[in-house]
Amino acid sequence: MKEPYFPEPSARFAQAVESLFEQRVVVLGHRRPDGDCIGSQVALVRCLRALRIDAVAVNPDPIPRTLQNFVGDTPFQNCDSLPEGEVAAIYVDCSDRERSGLELAERFSNPVLNVDHHVSNEGFAATDLVISDASATGEILAGFFFDNEYPVDAVTAQALYLGIATDTGQFRYRGANQRVFRICERLCGLGASPADAANELYEREKPGRIQLLQRFLASFRYECEGRVCIGMLDPSVYEETDTLPEDSENLVDYARSLEGVDVGALIEERDGMIKGSLRAKDNRFRVDLLAKKFTGGGHACAAGFNLDGTLSEFYPTFTREVEAHLLQVDEGSLDQ
Amino acid sequence: MKEPYFPEPSARFAQAVESLFEQRVVVLGHRRPDGDCIGSQVALVRCLRALRIDAVAVNPDPIPRTLQNFVGDTPFQNCDSLPEGEVAAIYVDCSDRERSGLELAERFSNPVLNVDHHVSNEGFAATDLVISDASATGEILAGFFFDNEYPVDAVTAQALYLGIATDTGQFRYRGANQRVFRICERLCGLGASPADAANELYEREKPGRIQLLQRFLASFRYECEGRVCIGMLDPSVYEETDTLPEDSENLVDYARSLEGVDVGALIEERDGMIKGSLRAKDNRFRVDLLAKKFTGGGHACAAGFNLDGTLSEFYPTFTREVEAHLLQVDEGSLDQ
Repeated sequence: MKEPYFPEPSARFAQAVESLFEQRVVVLGHRRPDGDCIGSQVALVRCLRALRIDAVAVNPDPIPRTLQNFVGDTPFQNCDSLPEGEVAAIYVDCSDRERSGLELAERFSNPVLNVDHHVSNEGFAATDLVISDASATGEILAGFFFDNEYPVDAVTAQALYLGIATDTGQFRYRGANQRVFRICERLCGLGASPADAANELYEREKPGRIQLLQRFLASFRYECEGRVCIGMLDPSVYEETDTLPEDSENLVDYARSLEGVDVGALIEERDGMIKGSLRAKDNRFRVDLLAKKFTGGGHACAAGFNLDGTLSEFYPTFTREVEAHLLQVDEGSLDQ
Repeated sequence: MKEPYFPEPSARFAQAVESLFEQRVVVLGHRRPDGDCIGSQVALVRCLRALRIDAVAVNPDPIPRTLQNFVGDTPFQNCDSLPEGEVAAIYVDCSDRERSGLELAERFSNPVLNVDHHVSNEGFAATDLVISDASATGEILAGFFFDNEYPVDAVTAQALYLGIATDTGQFRYRGANQRVFRICERLCGLGASPADAANELYEREKPGRIQLLQRFLASFRYECEGRVCIGMLDPSVYEETDTLPEDSENLVDYARSLEGVDVGALIEERDGMIKGSLRAKDNRFRVDLLAKKFTGGGHACAAGFNLDGTLSEFYPTFTREVEAHLLQVDEGSLDQ
């Protein structure tokens, strides 16, 4: 018998699953779904269906192009085709219900289960399984499935691997540890293919995304004596490069990657809104608290926010707040 | 007792190590050393020294900036300070002796050991341990150390992880498989830190490298109906961006990453020479044979060449040869 990955939460997961027999289940993800969101939805729906529970995945936004081939024959629906009547809801990879959009959050306000790894998740379901030291929701689900000896087919293994590979930045972030590699080893044994996943994720670029990257790199500004690198995308950039907002995913990593930079930022203006993404080199920079100043949130190393405004108005406010934040970090006086 | 990784080669490795007691040993790497080269040298020297064998690493070229922090207190020497007299030589990650430069190849023409994963390695030592299905020389050495229960300290574990992480492109290439993850799990247990490694490798960019990337992306030309993407660097680019030739490492991956592109190329002109790097999405494109047309070579998916010329002269020749090569690939008529 192998040592369990998450002994107590896995037992509670099994109890929640037990309660779902004979019910219809929706597995909800978040807006602008990423690899861990889609991977977790695919994996959980497939596992439940293998256990003969009638589950479908529902997401408010379409599945991004590079993630579509991870779905296989897993049933995926959008908000227009929700099941009628009594339905049990499970949220995955959502720090709160609203992350899945207002319509779904209202329709499914009393979920049975909430599986997530975001430290900011305060719990909102009958059973909350939040493991904030896990690298990905996919890692948590893999642990639950293995601990309970639930069936994991090759598509499920690949979906769980997808979540882990993307949310660890291909094993580059702090979350990539011994447990993560142990889980990936088992997933490979069950049919996950790291190279196939990488081909889908990284070898299907559009020329427009190369132009978007060029525009982003050309916009870099260094603030706070070089400790902060800010890249910007203006409102017309998607049209001019024939790209979609989903194509700006991960660009912010380039801003963080510079030597001496503690915090990298992507700020974009779209439809009169500012969307910000923040990445720190180290947990002590607590960009989740920085994002909170702009009504956002996230992880200590990766956070984001959305608010009304334009780039030219917002930029000086942002740099002022970043500077004040770094001062607090340096002084050890962060107000948590 | 765990199942051995490489049973027969590990036993031969142990025999070779047995023969080295009371001898002085140099562990040789290759020119323009990469993560797997430096990592393998560090790991093997440390392991031998822990076994009380007097070993030092020798490399013809300096250790690149982003790899220096993986060396720790491992003794590293260049060609100017070679030990005198009788010395036993071990080549790591070198497909032939000349990869370590002519001076070292001549001085150490009768090596006791050759540990490598390049399929083109035909053997040149008293004991040749070439495992071409391994993702990295670091993976092979890790397997040898584990199979023989040799001591692996934290610096050694991190050096072996470095080799695997870089030679699999952060677990993106075909070599990233179940065995690789199993080995990485054990290395993490011995002190390897994927996030620390990634910080050294990817989070110490220079602003000039960002400009170099911009210049490279802006140069993209698509040939052969979009199946080939060629990026170019002109002779003045390094000076203008305050970068070094080693900073163009990995840029060619961007050219390959486009959807529909089978072969990505980086062609640069430097000091009246053309240097080409070729990357294919699939082994069947055999860029090693394409590189051979220009007196180069390499792997089926990754190859390179150097020849006299200028960009403007070479470009039409290159596109003509690529087109002819792809036609042969399509027809299945490649002359091997």
